[in-house]
Order: sequence, then structure tokens, then C-alpha cells
Amino acid sequence: MAIVRVGFLEVWVRDLERSLEFYRGLLGMLLERREGKAAYLRGYEEREWSLKLKEAPFPAVAALGFKVDSEEGVSALKAWAEREGLPHREEADWARPRILRVQDPFGYPLAFYFQAEKLPRMLQEYHLHRGPGLLRLDHINLFSPEVDQATRYYQEALGFRLTEYTEDEEGRLWASWLHRKGNVHDVAFTNGEGPRLHHFAYWLPDPMAIIRAADILAGARRTEEIERGPGRHGISNAMFLYLRDPDGHRVELYTSDYLTVDPDLPPVRWSLNDPRRQTLWGHRTPKSWFLEGSTLLDLSGNPVPRRASRLEGIPEHVI
Amino acid sequence: MAIVRVGFLEVWVRDLERSLEFYRGLLGMLLERREGKAAYLRGYEEREWSLKLKEAPFPAVAALGFKVDSEEGVSALKAWAEREGLPHREEADWARPRILRVQDPFGYPLAFYFQAEKLPRMLQEYHLHRGPGLLRLDHINLFSPEVDQATRYYQEALGFRLTEYTEDEEGRLWASWLHRKGNVHDVAFTNGEGPRLHHFAYWLPDPMAIIRAADILAGARRTEEIERGPGRHGISNAMFLYLRDPDGHRVELYTSDYLTVDPDLPPVRWSLNDPRRQTLWGHRTPKSWFLEGSTLLDLSGNPVPRRASRLEGIPEHVI
Amino acid sequence: MAIVRVGFLEVWVRDLERSLEFYRGLLGMLLERREGKAAYLRGYEEREWSLKLKEAPFPAVAALGFKVDSEEGVSALKAWAEREGLPHREEADWARPRILRVQDPFGYPLAFYFQAEKLPRMLQEYHLHRGPGLLRLDHINLFSPEVDQATRYYQEALGFRLTEYTEDEEGRLWASWLHRKGNVHDVAFTNGEGPRLHHFAYWLPDPMAIIRAADILAGARRTEEIERGPGRHGISNAMFLYLRDPDGHRVELYTSDYLTVDPDLPPVRWSLNDPRRQTLWGHRTPKSWFLEGSTLLDLSGNPVPRRASRLEGIPEHVI
Amino acid sequence: MAIVRVGFLEVWVRDLERSLEFYRGLLGMLLERREGKAAYLRGYEEREWSLKLKEAPFPAVAALGFKVDSEEGVSALKAWAEREGLPHREEADWARPRILRVQDPFGYPLAFYFQAEKLPRMLQEYHLHRGPGLLRLDHINLFSPEVDQATRYYQEALGFRLTEYTEDEEGRLWASWLHRKGNVHDVAFTNGEGPRLHHFAYWLPDPMAIIRAADILAGARRTEEIERGPGRHGISNAMFLYLRDPDGHRVELYTSDYLTVDPDLPPVRWSLNDPRRQTLWGHRTPKSWFLEGSTLLDLSGNPVPRRASRLEGIPEHVI
Repeated sequence: MAIVRVGFLEVWVRDLERSLEFYRGLLGMLLERREGKAAYLRGYEEREWSLKLKEAPFPAVAALGFKVDSEEGVSALKAWAEREGLPHREEADWARPRILRVQDPFGYPLAFYFQAEKLPRMLQEYHLHRGPGLLRLDHINLFSPEVDQATRYYQEALGFRLTEYTEDEEGRLWASWLHRKGNVHDVAFTNGEGPRLHHFAYWLPDPMAIIRAADILAGARRTEEIERGPGRHGISNAMFLYLRDPDGHRVELYTSDYLTVDPDLPPVRWSLNDPRRQTLWGHRTPKSWFLEGSTLLDLSGNPVPRRASRLEGIPEHVI
Repeated sequence: MAIVRVGFLEVWVRDLERSLEFYRGLLGMLLERREGKAAYLRGYEEREWSLKLKEAPFPAVAALGFKVDSEEGVSALKAWAEREGLPHREEADWARPRILRVQDPFGYPLAFYFQAEKLPRMLQEYHLHRGPGLLRLDHINLFSPEVDQATRYYQEALGFRLTEYTEDEEGRLWASWLHRKGNVHDVAFTNGEGPRLHHFAYWLPDPMAIIRAADILAGARRTEEIERGPGRHGISNAMFLYLRDPDGHRVELYTSDYLTVDPDLPPVRWSLNDPRRQTLWGHRTPKSWFLEGSTLLDLSGNPVPRRASRLEGIPEHVI
Repeated sequence: MAIVRVGFLEVWVRDLERSLEFYRGLLGMLLERREGKAAYLRGYEEREWSLKLKEAPFPAVAALGFKVDSEEGVSALKAWAEREGLPHREEADWARPRILRVQDPFGYPLAFYFQAEKLPRMLQEYHLHRGPGLLRLDHINLFSPEVDQATRYYQEALGFRLTEYTEDEEGRLWASWLHRKGNVHDVAFTNGEGPRLHHFAYWLPDPMAIIRAADILAGARRTEEIERGPGRHGISNAMFLYLRDPDGHRVELYTSDYLTVDPDLPPVRWSLNDPRRQTLWGHRTPKSWFLEGSTLLDLSGNPVPRRASRLEGIPEHVI
Repeated sequence: MAIVRVGFLEVWVRDLERSLEFYRGLLGMLLERREGKAAYLRGYEEREWSLKLKEAPFPAVAALGFKVDSEEGVSALKAWAEREGLPHREEADWARPRILRVQDPFGYPLAFYFQAEKLPRMLQEYHLHRGPGLLRLDHINLFSPEVDQATRYYQEALGFRLTEYTEDEEGRLWASWLHRKGNVHDVAFTNGEGPRLHHFAYWLPDPMAIIRAADILAGARRTEEIERGPGRHGISNAMFLYLRDPDGHRVELYTSDYLTVDPDLPPVRWSLNDPRRQTLWGHRTPKSWFLEGSTLLDLSGNPVPRRASRLEGIPEHVI
């Protein structure tokens, strides 16, 4: 049951027009289909849609989707869900005939699929690109009150590989970065009240595209939607810009991390209070970044209850 | 009579729609006004229009415009034209109430103006920028069969300053770069059948914008409109991309030259056969670049007759 | 008496080795000469040195140098100093045989020169460039307790032109940007206890060079020397990074402002409490940036006494 | 037997000092060890060396190394070599205790390893980076007189996946791009006299680094070592610059291709005479690029005999 990479999100928004104005109008994402209260978008490199926006009474995230390597892979994940007694069901969506939805042991609403209708290649249609040029969904970051268990489970049960992690002086795990596709992460876990989504990230072509994104937000008088950055992370080495969409969902624009395909690549350990960890350079991280996140939904569409974390506090260099 | 900088061009095109598709659609220039068979465009940094396109039976360039520092400056230029017995007249155009048009002793159709209605500031409206982001008209380059006399005259009569020049081993001048505004040039003269326009150039924000321009042309399947580049010039140090518009007018996208305001800045001398001169790096210059140019018009709208140059040949490293 | 541009600074530092490690080692400036306790540096585009570091018991700035258009220009400035009864004297320095030093009516230690020995052209010796690639001195920014008078005087007596300014709701001038060389400024005045130097700025080739500078500081574990940025100013449109050198002198790395040569270019007015003014995007400006600056010296080498400003407070969006 | 990625090359050069001046001096690669007539280098992102230069009487390429996922993987490849009757042997090199060398059925001198001593992390030591900033070995490109068979064999026997390919109108395969690590290629086959190495490629951080590489070569007066580019490939979408090292080995600087991890990603088909294929934009490819390559060595260190290809000619748009 080989997961290939993070594949899509289903995001609930309160005003679809307003959200499309953000994701398509400002960020330039391709709108591939609009059907009732739902819209399907993708980045310029993607051959499958990666973001489903759905108008709903409150903001939330309904599905965290992963591309699997085959239909057999999806079936193996179904067997895993049954074996573990996890809530699950199969469903179809536009251009994706079989999606296996599973609420994992921690409460995250996962979705697995293999088959997907391929959309036309747009990568080299540069004359049609707009905005900073979002290329592809890169990763999701999840708040967890039990980072250590989640990290272990995602490695052992789901085959993820650890690339970087944050520990305190007592050896307790505060955050982890796990990948399948060969760069720093497909999924990260961050200590905090959870399960919640911390953010999802799109890959941009280069650091200048991050600058262009900031310029575009500024031109549109929407800098209040920039929560953090631009800066460079110590972790992942990536240049970043964190935005908050009209419903408060956090979107990272991300570029320039590194290749992690070697199975013997030693994970990078960061000390919790190392200020280089969060921000190699750039300004202090605002508190909101540590505390706020998106509600997740269970398979019935109800908010997943949150648990507080026993690890309290945010890093010293933030306050 | 202080000329401040090159200010605009009036360019005759055969199909205004097709030209607007090029300058506005592909290159992203701002269309400020359309009036009958004429259109007025500008770059994102400019507060005045800099390109007038006019639909006409044949392609040509009707005016090479220069911003002057005052109305007195325009009047002083009128006195110069009268003193020298040069064809001249005053006229008005959109947002520019007084333009002094003078055909100079070499046949170039110059136009001088001071007053210009200011257009809204667009530099920081980044969300509205399109294409590679042309910022401002930077310079014009003129074919001349008498580069030495033209260079001297533009220095002595019109106050231009020499920044770089190309000489052969016998000390004959093949090309010169002359400025008023403080970078490498407002006007350049290049040896060849003339008077003709070799090209006009717009300034781009940085080298990545040159790359983006090439990508956009490629995306639109219009690479045949790229005549030369990208590359970096030895002369001027600028990164460049030369395009040919739908009528064959040559447009340079140009960035990253240097400051030349010091009156004692020694001009840079280049040897005619130094291959670093034309192209610090990048591929060989095609022959068309040395031989083809735009017809200029006299004040009555008739093509200015051309004279052959006594200096023959193109540099050794081209052939 | 035409000033051409800002030309150099003489900066006192407590440990010359340590300062050279900063300006040459980290920032890559060219060290052209070292003589006793003084060192002369320049950027890659400059043909004259622009930074003199001098080891001294305390940090200070001894001279704010301006390139003038001729020896007659220097003499005219001498006549001005005499006419106004300003302290002044002539002296020589390395590669600069005649420097006229004048303490202006506000206490700023100005220095004027025309002649300067030209250093070899290094702009295109790219294989020798190091660090982020500082190209040339761009401007100085001065704390002043009387921004309105200083701004008027520099326009009327010294020929500077206003490009941008900050006013409060009562029409009081809090800051001004004044140029001679054709971009946004050679000199800026900022309200505050003064006279002091707020910062001096070097021009970088493009926004990616700003990113590279931040990366280099981070690599060297010297991010505490980054005081502010990267970001983009509303004023000037420039991308910036503010550093503090080992003595606390503030150095701005600056790029991508715009051309200001038109005499009728309308100055841009900014409202004091407009948050776009300081920072089009990027994080809040730290208080140190508003309050700290370098001591200036009079012609005898003694600190110029400072006066408090009657305009108190820093902008609302900072606190 | 899972190959992870291309891992290293052993390249024979005639003058080690001269080659180090190229790879380390100009291109900035990290020299990790020098031992007699051999030197080991790496890019800034790599934790293992990726280029071994060895002084020898004639230029050649002795090994094309691949990282394998485990020691069991190496043993499985040994079993394959034995099963197929391929010349092979095990040996050790610096920091790499077990390397399995196999001459494949087409004559290519492959080398497989898992264990490798990890070198210190240099990715974020930005203050120590020099030159354009080579990050990691990306791929090798091999001349083959039987592209169709080689492509099929590398897929079926060695587990490579096809991402792009070039066909003529009769359906004959002229070139193929095959990957293991999740971007466009680890290995490509190009029609021509072979087996030979066409080039090896290092990944650069972004398109500006390609420009910087060209500037550095130009500054050092070594543009004759630029064979092709800068440009953007149609195939792979990458920006490129092809250099020839002092022995004529071709090195590509490469960046900005795309993610290929999906098993159902449809390979991109290019028509042989599509000019967008080789060069989305940029100048014509020189003939040398189609005809010249590096000699490969068998396991005894003798040149592998070459076979002509039955497919003759180079694309129409080149000539």
C-alpha cells in the first residue's frame, strides 16, 4: 500500500466567490470545474486537480487526500482501515472515480485515490500563467497533541519517512517532517491542540516567485492576508510566505527545499529553542502562527473534537 | 535646451489589432487610450505614454521623441532648428499639448516636448501587472552611415554624453552610446545604411523578467519573434532579449546596465572585433540583426531616403 | 555648483579588522587600499572608492561625501560656505586630491570633491565577485529635528529635487527624499534627534541579491546583524535589507527603485500613518530602526551635539 | 533491487589541476578529498561525493554510479549481473566501502553502491558557497545506437520509468528520459554513435543561478567553454547551460524541471522535428552538441568500442 504523495484537499469556505477571487484571482490557480457550490483548482504543473473548495456554513477541512500507486494500493489501505477498525467509506468525486476516505486513529480525515482523469498539460503555457505561478501542492502540516505517536504511526503503518524533527532538551518530539515523494515533506506534525490543519502548501518555481506573491498581495492592498514571511526556514531550507485565505485557512507558498530520496539520509535534528529552526532569516513568527489552525471534519461532516497537548508553550524566541 | 531623456516613439503598423495583441497582450503594456487608428501605451513605471501605434499602409517610425526640461527648453530647440535651417513644426498630440518636430541634419525625425499630462501611478499596482513587466522606455538605437559625425553632433549640439563606443583598428567609429538620463544610453548610433531605426528598448525590472519574457513568447508559440538572446551585452552590461514585432520593428527588452552620471566617467572603448563587445555571453548575433531596421519618416510622412555606409562588413565573429 | 550624487562616507569603527571582515568578508566589497588605520572600499560598479573605514576610539561618521560636476563646482561650494559663514576647509585624501569639507547649517559634515583617480573596471569581472554583490553607494539617510527646514535648504541652496515625502494630517513634514542622480534619493531626512546618520545604502543588482545577502548572513550565524527586512518599501518601491555593522552603523542593501529625471515628476506624498509607506510588504519595523543612529563629527573630529525634535512619536502601525 | 538515483561519475582528465580549477574554481564545487591523482567533489546539497576526477593519459568516463536502496539491493544487482553474464566486480573507493561495477549489455560501465560515509551538511552554509552554486548531480545522458532496446531494458531490468521521449514520424525512438528519483530523469538515451556519455548534469537552485554561471564564465574570459545556452528545454522544461570542461567532457547546469512520482503520469511524446523539443527558447543547438561525447571505459579501463547508429541525421531545425 504505497502512498505516492499528498494529492488534494477539500476545503470548506463560507463564500465561494470570495475564495475563488483569492485562489484564482490573486494566486492565479487554474479553475478546472465549477459545479454547484464546489470548485476544483490546480497549479500549473499538476495534471490532476489538487484543491476542492466547497461553500459551507463554516470554514473547515473535509479531506486530506493522498495519491496512491495503484488500485491495489487503495484496496490495501481499505484492508488496513478494516483491520484497525477505522471509520471509512468509498466515494467518487469529479474526475476521480474511487476515493477511499478513512478517519485515522488520531482523527485526521484522510482520503486515498489512484485513478484520476488527466487534465491538459499547462506547465509550458507560460503566456497563460498569472500571479506568482503556483505549480503544485507540496505538503500539509497538521496540529497534533501527540506528535510522537502520530510520527511513529505514519512511519510504521503508512510508510512515511522522517526527514527533520524538533526535540526539546528532554528528548520530547515537538514537530516532525515526513515524506513519500522525495522532498522534505508530504505531511508534517506540529505540537498543539488537535487534530487540526495548520496549513497546506503550494510549490512555487523559485524565490523570485515568493517576492512576486508578496508584491501582488501588496498591490491589491491585501497585506493583512500575509501572516508571516517572506523568509527562509531553517527546517527544509525552503523560502516561504504564509497567507491566510478569506476564511482564515493558512496557505504556504513554498520553494527550494532539497532531495530526500536516499533511504540512509540522516534526519536533521533541531533543538526546540534554536531560532534558526523556524526562521533561518526573516522576522519573528507571530503567535497566531503557533496557535491558529483549521477545523477538521469527520466522515459525517462534523467537526473532529480537539484535544489539548501536554506539551505547552511556544519557543522562547517567539515571545 | 536640456534634453532630459528619450520620451516616446510614434510607430506605424499595418494592423493595429495585431500590434496591440503583441504590445499589450504578450508584453503586458498598459493601453491608455485608443483613438481612431491610433493607440497610446506605456510601461508600468511611466507617468506619461511612451509608445504611439498608428495604423498605416506600411511599417515605419514617424517620430523619435525626447522629453525636454522646460518649455524654454523646447523654444531653445526651436531656435536651434531655425538657426540650422532644419525642417520643423509644432503640433499637439493626446496629453501632450506642444510637440516640436524637427528633422535633424542626418534625417532623423526628432520630436521634443516638455508638458505632458500625468497618468496614474501604476508601479506598485502589482496585482494588475501582466507579462514580463515592461517598466519604461530606455533608449533608441539608430542606423547611421556617418556614426562619427552624428556622435559628435549629438554631443555638441544636443548635449548628449558618450558612455561607450566601438572603433576599428584604424580608429574609425562604428558605433556609439550616448546618454542624457544617467544610464548607458538614450540614443545609440550603429554603422549601417541609414538613417533608419535599429531598435527601441524597454527597461525590465531584473534578469528574471527577461527569462519570463522568453517563456511567455515560447508559451504563445511565438519564438520566431525572438531574434536574439537572451544574453548579456559586453557594451552596457545589460541583459537583453530582442524581439521583432508583427511589422518587423525590433524591440529590445533590457535591464541591468549602470549609472553614468559622473561627468568624468571615462567612456568604455570596444574593439570592433572583440566578441565580448556584442555578447558577453549568449549565442552569435544573427545577420538580420546587423542588416535590418525600420524606415523613418520625414515631417510630411514620406520615407527618409537612405544612404549606404562607407564602412562595410559586419564583425568577424558574426559570420 | 552642481552636485552630481552622493559619493562616499568616512566611517569611524573601533576595530578595523572586524569591520573589514564585515564589509569585505561578508558583503564582498572590494578593498582597494589599506593605509595605517584606514581602509578604502568600493562596490563592483564603482570606479572611485566610496567607503573609508577608519579605526578610532568610538564609532562615528566623519564625512558625508558628494561628487560635484567640476572643480568650478567645488569652488562655488566654497564660496557658498564662505557666504554662509559655515566651518570649512580643504584637504586631500587617497586618490582624491581636493576635498572641500563643510559643516552645513544643520551640523551635517559634508564633503565635496570632483577629481578622483579612477580604479579598474570590475563590473564585468563576475568571476571575482563575492557575497551578494554590492554595486554602488546609493544614498544616505539623515536624522533631523527640523526636516522641513533641511528639506527646503537642500533644495534651494544645494539643488536637490524632492521625489517623495511623509506628512502628518496637520501638514507637518516628517521625512523627505531628495535626489540629484536621477533615482529616488541621494539624501533623505527623517524626523528624530539629530543631526545623526540614520543609514547609508548600497545598490544591489536585483531582488535575488537581497535574498542572497540574507542567506549569507544566516549561513555565517549573523542574523542578529539583520535589523529589518527583507521587504519592499512603499516609498521608493525598493526592496531592502537593513544590517547593523559591528559598530552599530546601519547599512541598507537596496535595489529596484525608479527613474526620477523628469523635472515635472510630481513628488509622491505619503501619510504618516499609512502602513504601506514604510513597508509595502514585510514585517513591522522594529523600534530601534526609528530611534538609533550614528553620531556625526564636526570638522575637528568632535561629536556634533544633537537636538531633540519637536515632532514626537513613531507611526501608529509600528508600536 | 531498487535503484534510488544517479549517484556519481568517475571522470578521467588529463590535468587534474586544470580540472579542479574548472570544477572547484569556476563552478564552486566542494573539494572533499584529494588523494594522489584523484579528487572527490560534491555539490552544496549532497551528503555524499558525486564526482571523482582522476588524472589519466586520455579523457574518458570510467564509471556511471547509481545509489541503491540497501546492501540487499546491491546483492540483487550482482545476481542480475551473474544471471545475464555481464562483466562485473566489487571494489571499494573513498567513503564508499562496496561498489559493484557492472558493464551492462550495451557496454555502459555502471557502478552500484548503497553505503556511503556522510559528509557534513553544507546546504545552509551560504557564506561558504561560491560560483553559481551547484547543488547536486541530477542526471546523465548517454549516446546509444539502439535507443529503443536500451530504453526497454532499463525499464524492464532496472526499474526505470519513462517520462518523455522523442519519436520520428515512423514511430522510431530517437531519445528517451528515464527516472528513478522523481524528476524528469536520472538517465537519458540519445541516438548516436555509442555507447558514449553525452553529458552529466548538476542541479542549480534557480534560473538566476544559470545566469550567474554564464556571467562567471564570461568574467573569466571562458565563454568558449559554453557550448549551448542559456535556454529552456521543451523536454523537461528545465533551464540549461551546457559547458565543456577542459577535456571536452560536457557538463549541463540544469534547473526547474518537474515532479514525476505518479506512476500513471503519461510520458510526454515529442516529435523529432518539433523545434520546441530541444529548445523551448534559446538559440539553435550547435552540431557539436549532437555529435561529440565522452569515451566510456570497460571494467579493465579500456575504451568501450562504439557502434554507429542506424538512425542517421540530426533534426531539421538544427542544420
